[in-house]
Amino acid sequence: MLPEEFTAFVKEKGFIYPSSDIYGGLAGFYDYGHNGTKLKRKFEDAWRKFFLSLNDNFFEIETANIMHKNVFKASGHLENFTDPIIRCSKCSFFSRADHYLEEHTGDRSEDLDLEGFDAAIKEHNLKCPKCGGEFKPAQDLNLMFPVNDNAYLRPETAQSPFVNFKLQYQLLREKMPMGLGLIGRAYRNEISPRNLTIRQREFTQAELQIFFNPRLIDEHEDFDNVKHIELSIMRADKRDQGIQKITAEALMEEGLPKFYTYHLAKIQQFYMNVLKLPAEKFRLYELVGKEKAFYNKYHFDLEADIEGLGWVEIGGLHYRTDHDLKGHQDVSKQKMEINVDGEKFIPHVLEVSMGVDRNVYALLDLHTRDDERGNKVLALPTKLAPTQLALFPLVNKVHEKAREIYDSIKDDFDIKYDKSGSVGRRYARSDEEGTPFCITVDFEDGVTIRSRDTTEQVRLNGNLHESLRKILAGAKLLDVGSKIEANNNA
Amino acid sequence: MLPEEFTAFVKEKGFIYPSSDIYGGLAGFYDYGHNGTKLKRKFEDAWRKFFLSLNDNFFEIETANIMHKNVFKASGHLENFTDPIIRCSKCSFFSRADHYLEEHTGDRSEDLDLEGFDAAIKEHNLKCPKCGGEFKPAQDLNLMFPVNDNAYLRPETAQSPFVNFKLQYQLLREKMPMGLGLIGRAYRNEISPRNLTIRQREFTQAELQIFFNPRLIDEHEDFDNVKHIELSIMRADKRDQGIQKITAEALMEEGLPKFYTYHLAKIQQFYMNVLKLPAEKFRLYELVGKEKAFYNKYHFDLEADIEGLGWVEIGGLHYRTDHDLKGHQDVSKQKMEINVDGEKFIPHVLEVSMGVDRNVYALLDLHTRDDERGNKVLALPTKLAPTQLALFPLVNKVHEKAREIYDSIKDDFDIKYDKSGSVGRRYARSDEEGTPFCITVDFEDGVTIRSRDTTEQVRLNGNLHESLRKILAGAKLLDVGSKIEANNNA
Repeated sequence: MLPEEFTAFVKEKGFIYPSSDIYGGLAGFYDYGHNGTKLKRKFEDAWRKFFLSLNDNFFEIETANIMHKNVFKASGHLENFTDPIIRCSKCSFFSRADHYLEEHTGDRSEDLDLEGFDAAIKEHNLKCPKCGGEFKPAQDLNLMFPVNDNAYLRPETAQSPFVNFKLQYQLLREKMPMGLGLIGRAYRNEISPRNLTIRQREFTQAELQIFFNPRLIDEHEDFDNVKHIELSIMRADKRDQGIQKITAEALMEEGLPKFYTYHLAKIQQFYMNVLKLPAEKFRLYELVGKEKAFYNKYHFDLEADIEGLGWVEIGGLHYRTDHDLKGHQDVSKQKMEINVDGEKFIPHVLEVSMGVDRNVYALLDLHTRDDERGNKVLALPTKLAPTQLALFPLVNKVHEKAREIYDSIKDDFDIKYDKSGSVGRRYARSDEEGTPFCITVDFEDGVTIRSRDTTEQVRLNGNLHESLRKILAGAKLLDVGSKIEANNNA
Repeated sequence: MLPEEFTAFVKEKGFIYPSSDIYGGLAGFYDYGHNGTKLKRKFEDAWRKFFLSLNDNFFEIETANIMHKNVFKASGHLENFTDPIIRCSKCSFFSRADHYLEEHTGDRSEDLDLEGFDAAIKEHNLKCPKCGGEFKPAQDLNLMFPVNDNAYLRPETAQSPFVNFKLQYQLLREKMPMGLGLIGRAYRNEISPRNLTIRQREFTQAELQIFFNPRLIDEHEDFDNVKHIELSIMRADKRDQGIQKITAEALMEEGLPKFYTYHLAKIQQFYMNVLKLPAEKFRLYELVGKEKAFYNKYHFDLEADIEGLGWVEIGGLHYRTDHDLKGHQDVSKQKMEINVDGEKFIPHVLEVSMGVDRNVYALLDLHTRDDERGNKVLALPTKLAPTQLALFPLVNKVHEKAREIYDSIKDDFDIKYDKSGSVGRRYARSDEEGTPFCITVDFEDGVTIRSRDTTEQVRLNGNLHESLRKILAGAKLLDVGSKIEANNNA
């Protein structure tokens, strides 16, 4: 869907809408409605199940959003977490310098410095779009929200695991590698929030910080299990060749460390097997030089091809080296070096980072298609669908019976009851909300189940609990129920 | 446990510790470690399962923490969300007036106004505890954290459902009652944060706002199912009689509306059957007059008896009438009145409110006991335990076999593998972390399971998956496994 249609659709279906809306909204802030909240939560649960189970020593922590000023002194955010802006010298117009330049010149400008922006503005003779005035020299603006004198709302979740590293390392009995996952909010005073939940001022990140011994970066005991996974890669030095399909093993042989490549492969597996994004809509995009954060030694963005927006960053795999722990050691004067069997080192960090809101956006966009009547079908994987089952009484007369069936299964399944409107309307509504299976209860107390994706219908006769469990686990309808003959005989 | 011991215990076991700790911490901010995060999440999941399933039309939403200034103009927070403070006229000392008075006089003072505080300070001749100086007149301090000019961090989650009411009512196809649940963070610049996570500056609330037709307040279709539930009640007019045991039905007959009483009974059921707090440690405490928020018509606090702290408010059931929706209607100029079959009204709100951090504190405190050797046993209900199962190889030689068993069940169970230390030490560690069942794998490839609560052990022979499922669902060990004879024969 194009962005405008998408924005209307996700609001109307209770997924995402502007926050503080009755007061005209606040730019860059969104809320999740009754369906969006379920989808977001299921994404988070799928993320946890997949990434925290990569190693017995990976755990989740949950931490305060407001953090001590010194955290951001150590991380460099106080000094460097800025965006370049340009302001009109006559009116109140201002914009992010790089965005403004890209929009008006088409050139990528993320590696320009302040003087570079000024030069480019001069070269292209750009003026204020509101009043035609000259721009003042570009300047840097810090994006953090201060809270009182000695604290900030964190601009990324990552600092919480870094600050907690030392204590958690002790609590988890001093084993390497150690992973600290965190799903939480981050806050950035973005100059121009836009594209719904793609660039917000308050957003949710799901991140796993893996602390490891840098001497072992070319090892991973589970690598054989991922080496044949085919990655969709854009290497920095081969961008003109577009997306390449290359196995994890071949990529490693091109020089990427095994420990890094392993996690790249796992990420691809997550997007293909769990989120089930269409293969051609996902890629791992390598950043080098000034494109990447200076402390990252290796940096791939995870990108999804969103209709109307093009390739959008929805996550990243960042080899942050010892940048963060060293920074905290310097400012806090707490020793971050550890001693493993006599070997002393400051652990390095590999960060698996995902924007939850951006991933939810990608799920909604990339799984929606039109059916033959032009209705939207949100074909989310069963495990991510806000509601897995919907149950309809075919007519009012069977409401009581249907309700009985519903009550007998509602504690065990993620199911909703819907009795209003024609059955066709109810199917359409379920399709739009992403419900993979609908159950109808008819005159003869019969129970029929219909698949959203195939529109196939079968009659369920045996134990209902058991049949539903099999279907939700992926069984084919015909292997569980029997073909409906009634319509053919009628 | 007394508070000091408790604080040390929950840190050492990875439940709760100060945030930004390597920088000396920030008063009133705490993080959850690897065990605390799991416990908190399980509490939240249990809350959702219980309260959102009270009605088909109850749903969860997830919303921005930063909200428009006008939200708090309408809610009254801008004007009224203040705490009274007293400041020394000579040094920098300041304190919450009511807390200071209670500590130094023993009198409850929550219904005093500013002049009342001044009078009480004079009456008791109180001086600054730091320098002996006189206090300035008491004043009110707003507790909200501002963010930029036109927004605040929300001081309670409740405003999000109120602001979203109108849209969600449309999206959910205009049915009453409608419930909007929300688990999220709130922020208050508390003057004296204290008692670990009991009074924090950033905290998590789990709240359900039920919008309903006030004409129907004396009705609830499910009331018969709760009428015999025995409530532990402190009525405002009978406090001298202590906690009374009274059925929901009898309480209703004393004049409490049926719709309100129903939810009071459900709350008691949640605490007794799901959280399984000891009955004598929980009570519903009625507030009246100036004790309660002025807009609440009925107000019971949910209280837990915490060692060393006494009765602590861990939630509440608040009949907020139409106070909030009317306020938002006035300020936003958006009509909040709805039309149900020709009947026009502004819905009233019943709020089921719980402090997640306070509930987690209560769970940790009230479920911990000492075993006969003086070790701590955290006897959390199985569904709330951070880890449900722990698996130990009895000796190193069976590590491989044990690992095989672990790998075969780890995707289906919440289980951890622990191979270090003596078996006794591993049992003790599991007990402290709240793990209800430990599995040992021994020489003969046998599998033994031990209950934390009874220390009973049985041998598991049949299908391991099935046996574990039964045990976790509450089956007695002896009904699933066979008594161990080995030791007797040896």
